[in-house]
Amino acid sequence: MSPTARTDLLLPADPTQRGIARELYALAKDQPLISPHGHVDPAILADDVPFPDPARLLIVPDHYVTRMLLSQGIPPASLGVPSVDGSAVETDGRTIWRRFAANWHLFRGTPSRLWLERTFAEVFGVRTSLRPETADAVYDEIAARLAEPGFRPRALFERFHIEVLATTESPLDDLGRHAKLAADGWGGPGGRVITTFRPDNVVDMEFDNWAANVARLGEVAGEDTGTYRGYLAALRQRRAAFIAAGATSSDHGHPTALTLRLDEAEAAALYERGLRGAATPADAEAFRAHMLVEFARMSIEDGLVMQLHPGAVRNHNRPLHARHGRDVGGDIPAATEYVHALAPLLDAYGNDPRLRVVLYTLDEYTFTRELAPLAGGYPALYLGAPWWFLDSPEGLRRFREAVTETAGFYNTAGFVDDTRAFCSIPVRHDVARRVDAGFLARLVAEHRLPLDEAAETIVDLAYRLPKRIFKIGEPL
Amino acid sequence: MSPTARTDLLLPADPTQRGIARELYALAKDQPLISPHGHVDPAILADDVPFPDPARLLIVPDHYVTRMLLSQGIPPASLGVPSVDGSAVETDGRTIWRRFAANWHLFRGTPSRLWLERTFAEVFGVRTSLRPETADAVYDEIAARLAEPGFRPRALFERFHIEVLATTESPLDDLGRHAKLAADGWGGPGGRVITTFRPDNVVDMEFDNWAANVARLGEVAGEDTGTYRGYLAALRQRRAAFIAAGATSSDHGHPTALTLRLDEAEAAALYERGLRGAATPADAEAFRAHMLVEFARMSIEDGLVMQLHPGAVRNHNRPLHARHGRDVGGDIPAATEYVHALAPLLDAYGNDPRLRVVLYTLDEYTFTRELAPLAGGYPALYLGAPWWFLDSPEGLRRFREAVTETAGFYNTAGFVDDTRAFCSIPVRHDVARRVDAGFLARLVAEHRLPLDEAAETIVDLAYRLPKRIFKIGEPL
Amino acid sequence: MSPTARTDLLLPADPTQRGIARELYALAKDQPLISPHGHVDPAILADDVPFPDPARLLIVPDHYVTRMLLSQGIPPASLGVPSVDGSAVETDGRTIWRRFAANWHLFRGTPSRLWLERTFAEVFGVRTSLRPETADAVYDEIAARLAEPGFRPRALFERFHIEVLATTESPLDDLGRHAKLAADGWGGPGGRVITTFRPDNVVDMEFDNWAANVARLGEVAGEDTGTYRGYLAALRQRRAAFIAAGATSSDHGHPTALTLRLDEAEAAALYERGLRGAATPADAEAFRAHMLVEFARMSIEDGLVMQLHPGAVRNHNRPLHARHGRDVGGDIPAATEYVHALAPLLDAYGNDPRLRVVLYTLDEYTFTRELAPLAGGYPALYLGAPWWFLDSPEGLRRFREAVTETAGFYNTAGFVDDTRAFCSIPVRHDVARRVDAGFLARLVAEHRLPLDEAAETIVDLAYRLPKRIFKIGEPL
Repeated sequence: MSPTARTDLLLPADPTQRGIARELYALAKDQPLISPHGHVDPAILADDVPFPDPARLLIVPDHYVTRMLLSQGIPPASLGVPSVDGSAVETDGRTIWRRFAANWHLFRGTPSRLWLERTFAEVFGVRTSLRPETADAVYDEIAARLAEPGFRPRALFERFHIEVLATTESPLDDLGRHAKLAADGWGGPGGRVITTFRPDNVVDMEFDNWAANVARLGEVAGEDTGTYRGYLAALRQRRAAFIAAGATSSDHGHPTALTLRLDEAEAAALYERGLRGAATPADAEAFRAHMLVEFARMSIEDGLVMQLHPGAVRNHNRPLHARHGRDVGGDIPAATEYVHALAPLLDAYGNDPRLRVVLYTLDEYTFTRELAPLAGGYPALYLGAPWWFLDSPEGLRRFREAVTETAGFYNTAGFVDDTRAFCSIPVRHDVARRVDAGFLARLVAEHRLPLDEAAETIVDLAYRLPKRIFKIGEPL
Repeated sequence: MSPTARTDLLLPADPTQRGIARELYALAKDQPLISPHGHVDPAILADDVPFPDPARLLIVPDHYVTRMLLSQGIPPASLGVPSVDGSAVETDGRTIWRRFAANWHLFRGTPSRLWLERTFAEVFGVRTSLRPETADAVYDEIAARLAEPGFRPRALFERFHIEVLATTESPLDDLGRHAKLAADGWGGPGGRVITTFRPDNVVDMEFDNWAANVARLGEVAGEDTGTYRGYLAALRQRRAAFIAAGATSSDHGHPTALTLRLDEAEAAALYERGLRGAATPADAEAFRAHMLVEFARMSIEDGLVMQLHPGAVRNHNRPLHARHGRDVGGDIPAATEYVHALAPLLDAYGNDPRLRVVLYTLDEYTFTRELAPLAGGYPALYLGAPWWFLDSPEGLRRFREAVTETAGFYNTAGFVDDTRAFCSIPVRHDVARRVDAGFLARLVAEHRLPLDEAAETIVDLAYRLPKRIFKIGEPL
Repeated sequence: MSPTARTDLLLPADPTQRGIARELYALAKDQPLISPHGHVDPAILADDVPFPDPARLLIVPDHYVTRMLLSQGIPPASLGVPSVDGSAVETDGRTIWRRFAANWHLFRGTPSRLWLERTFAEVFGVRTSLRPETADAVYDEIAARLAEPGFRPRALFERFHIEVLATTESPLDDLGRHAKLAADGWGGPGGRVITTFRPDNVVDMEFDNWAANVARLGEVAGEDTGTYRGYLAALRQRRAAFIAAGATSSDHGHPTALTLRLDEAEAAALYERGLRGAATPADAEAFRAHMLVEFARMSIEDGLVMQLHPGAVRNHNRPLHARHGRDVGGDIPAATEYVHALAPLLDAYGNDPRLRVVLYTLDEYTFTRELAPLAGGYPALYLGAPWWFLDSPEGLRRFREAVTETAGFYNTAGFVDDTRAFCSIPVRHDVARRVDAGFLARLVAEHRLPLDEAAETIVDLAYRLPKRIFKIGEPL
């Protein structure tokens, strides 16, 4: 990548706007990274052992990459994606890498291309452009770096200038890695690596092994989850444990954004049907919806910021799920309704200044119609960064263009990388900062915002807003 | 605002496009303002008394402003928004203004920022930029202007170069202010200030006090609204009275765009259930839907242009509604379907050249799929300007980019400010003219339209089209 | 059109991007045209007789044109659109042409304007710009050309540099024109003019005369379509006949994208109810949905690429349909769901490398939420070019901006003109190439893609991808 490309990547081509965007980006680019939501395995940082080979680090676990290759007929097994059915998968890193490199053209115009290319160049210092013919050379360069001490996780964490990274754990997790991190001076409240409370596996009756998970929740929490009341007590107890491990937020991944206020007897009856294995899909949806309101109530009590990630149809690609399990690229978004769905929660707590809910979406066709009006009208609501399929230059740009006029900048929660790909974190944040610089530059060039206010705004978006909204480094 | 900013505000940054846009904008900017739909209180112009203090004029009644402040936890009561429950609200204009100014950054990138900033500068000649520290200075400058005779409503009306302004009244209104305006040479058919027939409060059974409103309608019209036939007669009579007061259009604000053709017996049965208080929500929806078809039939008889504003979920923020009533920023859009919903009306009258229906939307995700194909395929249909949450530079731009290819320019009805903020009218029209200039400039720069045709088009959009489509100054 | 306009039409105005776009467009513009889906009447090329007068060639059959004129109150009958109810229509070509020219301004900003203007200039060499006053001059120039041998269909086909053109026929068609074309060395497998298997009229029980069509299918195929098994055999037989006439794909125009797997007994029961005239709308929908899965299975056997065109509400303008029949501009899109609708088909065959399904849409508000994730996740799926109301510069641009990040370029199937307007084919492809050049130029200018890869991509999009994905010139 040429020096100009490094400077001007993703900035608008028009010289006036590019000039302004450069100035704005310069203010944002070195701000520390706040990563308040993501899926990095805390073991990486707790154990700080060297990363595996380039393919196992960068290709095998990246479902953006393996799904694109699958879409062109390259089976995940041939890319080393672990199977859950015992069938064989490719084990040779170099073979996997060559398959990936031979299909590099598929990624033209995608964020994966951008993330990987810049990770190669900027994290690993690779000077060779990836092409089918250079597969081995690039592989070898990265492999050599991975063997160096400076490329261990904690060293990279420092080099990436990450101020705080939140991982995501279920209430069944014993938080042992976070205890290790705290013991090493890396974790705990106010620490560099914190956790997030993600209770889907004990809330969603349609989750694999829900009843067993709930039983296990009781054991972990020392409560009797045989009753609904005990179940709530167990959840409260685990939230407290997560807060003690540094958590500042919870996260809820539901099929829809439905919320519902049931009285205790109704909720208890649903819960009991669930335990008996007699819950219908409608029961499961009602229970999830009710629990979102319960969690909002708990958030008002304990201060956790509440994140809602609705709208994914999980495991849509069923043969893929059967062979390789969850989270390997087989999920597809679906239309998501917020205005009626959130009304019960908002009626109860939407105007309560103690509640903070960050809303995400996979359905951008709600941006101006639903999400911006909601976030621009309720004190409790903030808009999370464009998520997953929308976490891309065009997606980020359309988000700003669509929501700013109704919600402003200050009802948005700042960039969230939401990634399990640790090495891609800096480039993902950098992409968001560049896109925001470009968007603000257009406002300045069209005389819609003075430069000094744009300058303040870009630093807010990059650093101050996510830190404040996610209560990073402050008491809940 | 610098001279360049005044010239080039909102025009594309690319020099080629900007040059063309300047030429086009120059043709549009001094065209008289046609404001065929809005919510200015006619008393303002009938009585022509000085406006109140800056906060009461510009902040308190502007729900765009108070909802944004609410979204960041600043209660409407602290901004002087009147309560309906008797609770206290802030009464000091300067205090309200300071609260607003202290949060000016929230409006970055919003149309409110643009409208207010230019209203300060261009209507009131304020030379100080608003910042928290300059709150008092800006307040004092505006307050001083408001005391001058040149800032009374009728003087501003002349200065704003408004040719026609339509207000909106319910059939229960006695049109006394419009009579006063007519007596002063300002109102009546062909006059400068005209009314619009908006019957929602006697059509929507779910409206507060519908039955009482219907009874009152009978009294006002001198008809027996105890029967459905008398009800229709009363509506016809009020339409005639509105036409005599200058109205050229009706307006219908419904939750959905549903239309329905019922025979008289079915409609009468619904009506009677409504009067008995026995109507279900489905009955209310069916009656609204049926009445849209009835109003279309009346329009064919009496010539009123029919406007349809569907898709707002009214009073979504229920605590806000409980304390402050309607129209204070608590409404949220919802997904709106047009293709099936309008079919009954279009089957009956969609090809009738005597009918003219102007469709609005809060759901831009119907632009290319539903609205442009409908308006580009039925003689009766025109597309109204982007409305409410979409009445903004980006919203106006996306509207042209989305609908023009299928509906052209000449199935769109021109800009509608739809505002109760009298002082913002010129800037709102100016924003639309600038955005249209920018859009047309792109077509010219990309060799898609010759400059002379773009020049004719922008004047059509700014002046001729709304005047013709809304039958301004012509006999119905 | 000036020389600059011819060079730079539709390319971005920004000089940097325009420069790059020119380079890229230069690589694409002379690539042969692959037209794998459209509605040109094969008789035109089989008989190769001169085209009729300019109005009958360019206006009367173009429903984009007649619907826009209808939307402004100009009845199709006055434009010569044939009636089905025996009522009179205008028959004088010059009168029709003058009516069209008098309303030329309605087409500003529309693709029809672009297509017609360039067809006049580049196909017919007209040097006069169309205006109401020049109607006769333009008419006369085109009429003069049409009388020349160089303007017969086959001569134009050569001049247009069309490599392959697929027409579309129903299974009831005897493929006689294609036999004639094959006899002349123009048709048959691997030929220049091929057919497409479009079975809607024997699949959709709600189609006019479905039962009679099915009976006729039995005769044509020599199978007993009185039974479901015989019906399937007849369809298989006709597919084989179409393949023998050069077909490489089937096409399915359904109201929705619903798919369904029924067992043979269930399907046979539906079929039998249909034949008895006892099928409900839900039965018809279920049968269509089931047959999509059946056709996918047949595609796996015989190799035909499967195209799916869902989402049109046919004959929405009912008075228009009553007077002028189908396909004259009275259809309107509706919201289309893909994620759940396609799941049954995808569960069965979505990962099968032998299946190839090209998905189209009239609902762009599924681009990032549904279509790109599906095409980017299933080996069988490809995205067809923006269709019908979206087949326009802005529509094509938004398609690339929306789908590329998730599906890449290589899960899209290349441009499809889908037109019955033979003379517009080159300009339609040219528009797509220019828009793609502009999109790629932005990626290059923003350092997101190197120029050499953009250069390879644009040739892939223009030529190689459609040829490969539609199996043009290769054995099935």
